[in-house]
Amino acid sequence: MLFLTRKEHFNAAHRLWNPGWSEQKNHAVFGKCANPNFHGHNFDLFVCVKGIPNPDTGCVMDLKVLKYIIREQVIDPLDHKNLNMDIPWLAHTIPSIEMVVLAIWNRLEDKLPPGVSLHKITLWETENNFVEYFGE
Amino acid sequence: MLFLTRKEHFNAAHRLWNPGWSEQKNHAVFGKCANPNFHGHNFDLFVCVKGIPNPDTGCVMDLKVLKYIIREQVIDPLDHKNLNMDIPWLAHTIPSIEMVVLAIWNRLEDKLPPGVSLHKITLWETENNFVEYFGE
Amino acid sequence: MLFLTRKEHFNAAHRLWNPGWSEQKNHAVFGKCANPNFHGHNFDLFVCVKGIPNPDTGCVMDLKVLKYIIREQVIDPLDHKNLNMDIPWLAHTIPSIEMVVLAIWNRLEDKLPPGVSLHKITLWETENNFVEYFGE
Amino acid sequence: MLFLTRKEHFNAAHRLWNPGWSEQKNHAVFGKCANPNFHGHNFDLFVCVKGIPNPDTGCVMDLKVLKYIIREQVIDPLDHKNLNMDIPWLAHTIPSIEMVVLAIWNRLEDKLPPGVSLHKITLWETENNFVEYFGE
Amino acid sequence: MLFLTRKEHFNAAHRLWNPGWSEQKNHAVFGKCANPNFHGHNFDLFVCVKGIPNPDTGCVMDLKVLKYIIREQVIDPLDHKNLNMDIPWLAHTIPSIEMVVLAIWNRLEDKLPPGVSLHKITLWETENNFVEYFGE
Amino acid sequence: MLFLTRKEHFNAAHRLWNPGWSEQKNHAVFGKCANPNFHGHNFDLFVCVKGIPNPDTGCVMDLKVLKYIIREQVIDPLDHKNLNMDIPWLAHTIPSIEMVVLAIWNRLEDKLPPGVSLHKITLWETENNFVEYFGE
Repeated sequence: MLFLTRKEHFNAAHRLWNPGWSEQKNHAVFGKCANPNFHGHNFDLFVCVKGIPNPDTGCVMDLKVLKYIIREQVIDPLDHKNLNMDIPWLAHTIPSIEMVVLAIWNRLEDKLPPGVSLHKITLWETENNFVEYFGE
Repeated sequence: MLFLTRKEHFNAAHRLWNPGWSEQKNHAVFGKCANPNFHGHNFDLFVCVKGIPNPDTGCVMDLKVLKYIIREQVIDPLDHKNLNMDIPWLAHTIPSIEMVVLAIWNRLEDKLPPGVSLHKITLWETENNFVEYFGE
Repeated sequence: MLFLTRKEHFNAAHRLWNPGWSEQKNHAVFGKCANPNFHGHNFDLFVCVKGIPNPDTGCVMDLKVLKYIIREQVIDPLDHKNLNMDIPWLAHTIPSIEMVVLAIWNRLEDKLPPGVSLHKITLWETENNFVEYFGE
Repeated sequence: MLFLTRKEHFNAAHRLWNPGWSEQKNHAVFGKCANPNFHGHNFDLFVCVKGIPNPDTGCVMDLKVLKYIIREQVIDPLDHKNLNMDIPWLAHTIPSIEMVVLAIWNRLEDKLPPGVSLHKITLWETENNFVEYFGE
Repeated sequence: MLFLTRKEHFNAAHRLWNPGWSEQKNHAVFGKCANPNFHGHNFDLFVCVKGIPNPDTGCVMDLKVLKYIIREQVIDPLDHKNLNMDIPWLAHTIPSIEMVVLAIWNRLEDKLPPGVSLHKITLWETENNFVEYFGE
Repeated sequence: MLFLTRKEHFNAAHRLWNPGWSEQKNHAVFGKCANPNFHGHNFDLFVCVKGIPNPDTGCVMDLKVLKYIIREQVIDPLDHKNLNMDIPWLAHTIPSIEMVVLAIWNRLEDKLPPGVSLHKITLWETENNFVEYFGE
């Protein structure tokens, strides 16, 4: 079993905001992350899949295909967008990196070719913090 | 003459938009950078100053002071903010990295201690593009 | 279950030295790492915690709190210090990155809020070597 | 149990090519990676070993010894070489990073000192893709 | 005057070899860089242009256009190729990074839009060495 | 004229301390950088030389020779050492990165081969600050 990881990135705006809370409580809990006009990040996304290398190619899967799937399912919808306002599959979600990672897992889990399965999604928000999810 | 550089960073939202143009022209010129609900970046800022090291300290200037000046003048106002909407000294400016660099130069130029002068401002928008300004 | 990681760093001096050995044996085993007047590093510390995101915030825990705990327990005591001489909780310890990681684990393990547990401590000594510890 | 990782790197040429296939099929499957005159990469290799720190040294193993083993077994044979043509232990192998990782595992697995075992081999081909292998 | 830099990269094989020299002399001068079956690198290319920002856009030039010019003139021809054998505009050239930088300058110098001029080409061969050229 | 840069690094201990000042004044001016038992850093050194490429090699100078000169003159003397106590050519110097850069320039300036001259020395102390010197 080998683990193959592809890095992609997107630039997006977001803010942390619970619409069920008062403005005061949002600022108390989320601090400057609750700024009403949003802020943004360069998000680095690592998608890790696992499988047995195909003996004819020596590869777990075609990296061009993996790149295409990630771009179609995740990067094209999210890049240069507002995560609070523009993304139907993040509606009714507080777009913390934890919630975005869960949503990305669900977007990718059943899109991989036979014999390959999704192992881990990692999302870096800044060079100082990131989240990982293994699907359970 | 030695050149001392300090790196700081801020996370902000922005979009490229010329209010004197139609929506159609803005999208034609700026592409996805004109998304109406903004996008964002992790901006890396490098401030380079020059001077003769003080013989008593061996330093061009106190790095804690340089850090404090940059944070007070630039990072605290810009971090977790929207560059189009939240910053008085960027009002009536298209917040491209070129225009932001010029504004940062003007904020810092006369704040340095005697014997030290501002040499260069560098601003990275993503790991693939950045702008430099030498004050002229 | 999601895994949230925060990066912090500190700059410190140390040397590898077993006080129960002769000077000759220390130099034979540790080479230049045993230099009597110490050397030093920029240490990068990654603290990984795990938990279920709080449905009200979308977050495993408040990143500001995690940062505060790491700084109070680890960074403030170690930054700009000598790991062989200045740190009570490293006394009688050879300050290899292995031993420092174990000590950092013990400092942090019971400081996290309810519902969150420490998963991994990673410490980079140079860009070419690092140690990981999972608590067992 | 602690996990100690050492990074090394090598620069090599390769191409993805299945000699049992037609030229046409190779280009269809491997795309530009099948270019007949090869291309190349700066490969970053991370070797992770695990063990209990020796109480006399505080270390899982002597990092100089680990570095020497990796250089002798992997870096010296591969650096500035052609992975398709120059390496006896990669002959009859499609030199994808998956196959190279498996071969590196086999080169290193039984070379480590007593009490230390190989945990993971990671090989980065570009800053955007890498493979990991845990030996099973 | 502002300086705008765009980073691109390509992966290529090469070797250092003077066809007017004996095999013995080539190996004596170039060492392992003369390996007959080539080796390779992940080359990072930084293209720096200078100009006055357009008051209507706030930009020195359209970054999408700069990216397109670099890809058409440099990246598409060089990526996944052999610099000694595959590139007409590097024929009869020893493909050191110095010679490649000069050739890239000549490819780009007259392709930029009016009001913008090429300032510097930087080419990284590994993370430890790079070359810069200012056109004179 | 081309500019060739080589990166090397060393790990060392130091502290900022003016022996002509009281302990109190040293702590007031240098803060935690004055800790009596030293602290340390992973220093990254970039040495930039300039020259015309040799038409027989395509290179400004032999990179192996440049590496050898830097290691002999700078890295071997400084690596795993205490910059305040162990280095004869830094005695009576406050080992700020400014003063170390000046001393490195003097060590290297007249060691280069004919036709090549030293252009710039850059020294990074942490990933957030560095100093550059052009020899005048």
